[in-house]
Amino acid sequence: MELLKQKILREGKVLPGNVLKVDSFLNHQIDPELMQCIGEEFAGRFADLGVTKILTLESSGIAPSIMTGLKLGVPVVFSRKRKSLTLIDHLYSAKVYSYTKNETSEISASKDYITRDDVVLIIDDFLANGQAVQGLLNIVEQAGASLAGVGIVIEKGFQDGGRLIRERGIHMESLAAIASLTDGKVTFKEEQ
Amino acid sequence: MELLKQKILREGKVLPGNVLKVDSFLNHQIDPELMQCIGEEFAGRFADLGVTKILTLESSGIAPSIMTGLKLGVPVVFSRKRKSLTLIDHLYSAKVYSYTKNETSEISASKDYITRDDVVLIIDDFLANGQAVQGLLNIVEQAGASLAGVGIVIEKGFQDGGRLIRERGIHMESLAAIASLTDGKVTFKEEQ
Repeated sequence: MELLKQKILREGKVLPGNVLKVDSFLNHQIDPELMQCIGEEFAGRFADLGVTKILTLESSGIAPSIMTGLKLGVPVVFSRKRKSLTLIDHLYSAKVYSYTKNETSEISASKDYITRDDVVLIIDDFLANGQAVQGLLNIVEQAGASLAGVGIVIEKGFQDGGRLIRERGIHMESLAAIASLTDGKVTFKEEQ
Repeated sequence: MELLKQKILREGKVLPGNVLKVDSFLNHQIDPELMQCIGEEFAGRFADLGVTKILTLESSGIAPSIMTGLKLGVPVVFSRKRKSLTLIDHLYSAKVYSYTKNETSEISASKDYITRDDVVLIIDDFLANGQAVQGLLNIVEQAGASLAGVGIVIEKGFQDGGRLIRERGIHMESLAAIASLTDGKVTFKEEQ
């Protein structure tokens, strides 16, 4: 998605440890118009699949998901992250390991809002090692729901997450796939 | 806002301790079309005030804020909540006490995105004792920014938060103000 890539090149900051910071439009400040374009792009890429629900993870997944949900005419469910669950009744939960934080958190979603009748589109802001998406996939499996696919705003294509998910035969779309962050410079993968 | 009130009456669940659960459309599952209507309503109520930025709190404040930001054509900044901050450089932070959780958390926002040149509209999903909004107001003050007002989706009008904020002369708008949750029944305040 050209608009997104231009925004990353203009405003993204490459930090040590292959970190790409996009706090100016996605992870802290959010650009609503860009989110609307992202929502339209995801809606187009996952059109005609009978999506009934979008599943994402708080907090940065919410804005792109809500715009996609608006365009597809379906509700969004956001999983909550916490270190330990006090209330596990009537929840699906999955453990998610974060390499950057070196900690395991538990993500959860209510059984009321993801059911076996749902066709779920998973959306998240970033994909690196893919731990968060694997957790969301786990929740979809626990619910016995169908999976339409996985939509990622920014994929770190030089890390393993995307490959592992695609190898499972899952329809995954990323709007900007990064090939490298070497020497503080963002290089994108060629679109196929 | 009639549409919102009808939704609360239809889907809200009153739990012991004056808790109103609206997990089906605001706090866990989100209804994007309703959020769009809410965004349009806030944009109308705070029109012509020169708003340059919306400030909210993760996670449930993000969806109504992003729709308001889209309508007003301004970015959204979401404050992060955490128990303790590891990185306090270049951040405004404020302590927020939660009566329901009986714990104090710290909310923060980057100095890059709220500045003395901004005219800030604060938006949040719920207002009860008003602790979260007081924390956001504190951040606006630290930044030396101007305040356009405070927009709340659901105000628990039988608790103190709204009165305390209005007594400071702040323009506050709530889209559904609840007068009482007695006997499991939602009663709204009369609109003025």
